[in-house]
Parts: sequence; C-alpha cells; structure tokens
Amino acid sequence: MGKIPEKAKRVFAGVIFDVYQWEQEMFDGSRMTFEMLKRPNTVEVIPVVGDKILIQEQEQPGSAPFLSLPGGRVDKNEDSLAAVKREFLEETGYVSENWELWDTVDPYGKMEWTIYSFIARDCRRQQEMHLDIGEKITLKFVSFDEFLALADNPNFYEPQLVPKLLQMRLDPAKLETFRKKLFPR
Amino acid sequence: MGKIPEKAKRVFAGVIFDVYQWEQEMFDGSRMTFEMLKRPNTVEVIPVVGDKILIQEQEQPGSAPFLSLPGGRVDKNEDSLAAVKREFLEETGYVSENWELWDTVDPYGKMEWTIYSFIARDCRRQQEMHLDIGEKITLKFVSFDEFLALADNPNFYEPQLVPKLLQMRLDPAKLETFRKKLFPR
Repeated sequence: MGKIPEKAKRVFAGVIFDVYQWEQEMFDGSRMTFEMLKRPNTVEVIPVVGDKILIQEQEQPGSAPFLSLPGGRVDKNEDSLAAVKREFLEETGYVSENWELWDTVDPYGKMEWTIYSFIARDCRRQQEMHLDIGEKITLKFVSFDEFLALADNPNFYEPQLVPKLLQMRLDPAKLETFRKKLFPR
Repeated sequence: MGKIPEKAKRVFAGVIFDVYQWEQEMFDGSRMTFEMLKRPNTVEVIPVVGDKILIQEQEQPGSAPFLSLPGGRVDKNEDSLAAVKREFLEETGYVSENWELWDTVDPYGKMEWTIYSFIARDCRRQQEMHLDIGEKITLKFVSFDEFLALADNPNFYEPQLVPKLLQMRLDPAKLETFRKKLFPR
C-alpha cells in the first residue's frame, strides 16, 4: 500500500496535498480511474532527557490542544535525519548527538506518506524554542511508565504509535527491548 | 479534528478525494492558506454467524491480499446503516436483522472522513456474493479469540480497530463488555 504507480499523472497540486490519477485494469479486463494522494513525509522523535521523555502540549489555530512528540514535515530534498534534528531544535531548543531511526510507517493506504520515528538519547538544551507562527508549544517531561500510559489518553495524537505502545504493554520482552533502546544504561 | 470550516472553498474535485482551502488567521494576526481533504464516509461491520465472526480475505487490483471486515463507501444521500447493510449483502451474501452502531472514528486529522463500525448479530446467508469488478473476496470464519489475535497480524488492514482490540486484551472488563455485545447469550 501507499505507492503511487509511475504511470500516474498529477492532476492537482495543493499546499500540502497533491492528487494523482491513473487508469487501472480491473479483474474483468475493463479499466477504471484510480486516485491517490501524496503529501510531504514527516518525522518525529522520542527524546530522552535524563530519566524522562520529552513530549509536547501543542495548540494550532483552529484546533483543541493535544499531546504529541516533537516533529514536522520533511522539506524538499531534505534527509529525514536532518529534518528531525531541525524540527526538534526549533520546537524544543534541545539537541542530541545520539540518534536512531526506530520505526517507519505508511499510515494511510491511499496516500504516499511515510512517518519516520526516531529515538534521540542524551538530549540537552541548547537554545530557546523558535516556533512557527502557527504553533504554541509547552514542553512536558514524563517517565517511561507515563509515556506507555499515553496510549490510553484520547488527547495523545500519535495514532501510529498507540498500537505499538499497547503491544509493548502486552509483551514484556518487547517492552524491555524498547526500554533499553531509550535508556541503555 | 477532521471538520472543514464552512468558509472553505473546494479547489479540486476528484474520483474519491476533494480538496478544500481557506485563509486561517495565525496567532500573530497574519494569514495562511490551510488545506483539508474530504472523502466519502465508510462503513464496516463485525458480523456474528453462530459462534464465529465473519472476516474477509480480499484482493484488489494492484495490491497484495489482506484481511478486513466487510464494508465500503457510503453513497451520496445514503444513511450509514443502509450503506452497511448493502455492502454486507453484496460482499458476503449475508443479512442480519440485529444491527448496532458500535463505534465511529475520524481516522485522519486533515481529512473529513468518518468510519462507522457496526455489529451485526445472528447473521444468515441469503444469496450469492455480488462483487465489484475491482474485488476478489474469500470469506473466513474466526472465533472470538482468533478475532482478538488479528491485532497482531500485519495483513489485518483495520488500523482504527487494532488499538481497540489491544485495549480489550489489556482490560478484562472491556473485553467482557465487547464479548457480550457480540455474543449476548
């Protein structure tokens, strides 16, 4: 899922979303117009600061406040690691020299869109936050157990992460592997 | 999340997806173009047949086979219950006179799209399947425990249902409530 065929044509270019269409041969030999979307890939990070994990409480114009991980869109011709370092610094003022790509998800079948999830260990504060005009962000520091419990919080807006946190809570071996990734010592 | 403002204008109308844009005032008083998508709402059903749950193994042109619940798109001016009865009959040949709306989800913040999930009890076979030219479907009958285990199956393509099944596996009271909804006797 999630890959636009090479033969598809872009029929609309938007601010975030582009629309592609192509002719698809059906099982009976007839043809139909298929449609898919493309949007910029996004990055996010689980940042470890001491024995805590840094999350955000965020407001955006026109939406209710929600909890999330730092992250944002990958710019054109930008590498996902460069993008997550840039967004993390802008949104939190923190840096890390210990990054690992932890997970990639294509969340929606009819859209070419990949979310790259990173872990950043040993994070430290370097500067003030530099927020976009569309962002109001407060930093929160939670324990590992509090982080796992976010899967039950309806205001935690990380839909692709929630099932993974629940899977860990059901499987002690998975949980321990994840804990060691975040807190190796 | 998931509601296009009234002032938004439709800037593209596609086969599945329409694109809307509007001017949004930012926190500093400046204005930016915001964009959201709209797609037809969808319905799906957890169908109970005797002591089993009916699921589908499905192939679509250009995709790998996957497991899912019966369902599909709500037609223009169609009620969600009428839509799920129609799709269920077409895709499986089964009917029920015991329906309940169990859950509604808006899976994607930047898209006006609601998934209506129904439970249908005491289902019985009425006719042959009438499949679209884009569908190849095989029916499978699974036990309640096998259904809960689908949350671990990467070929089970019901991303909004998976966290709910995992939550039930973590919470015996939730699990029992769900079991009684499916199998009241």
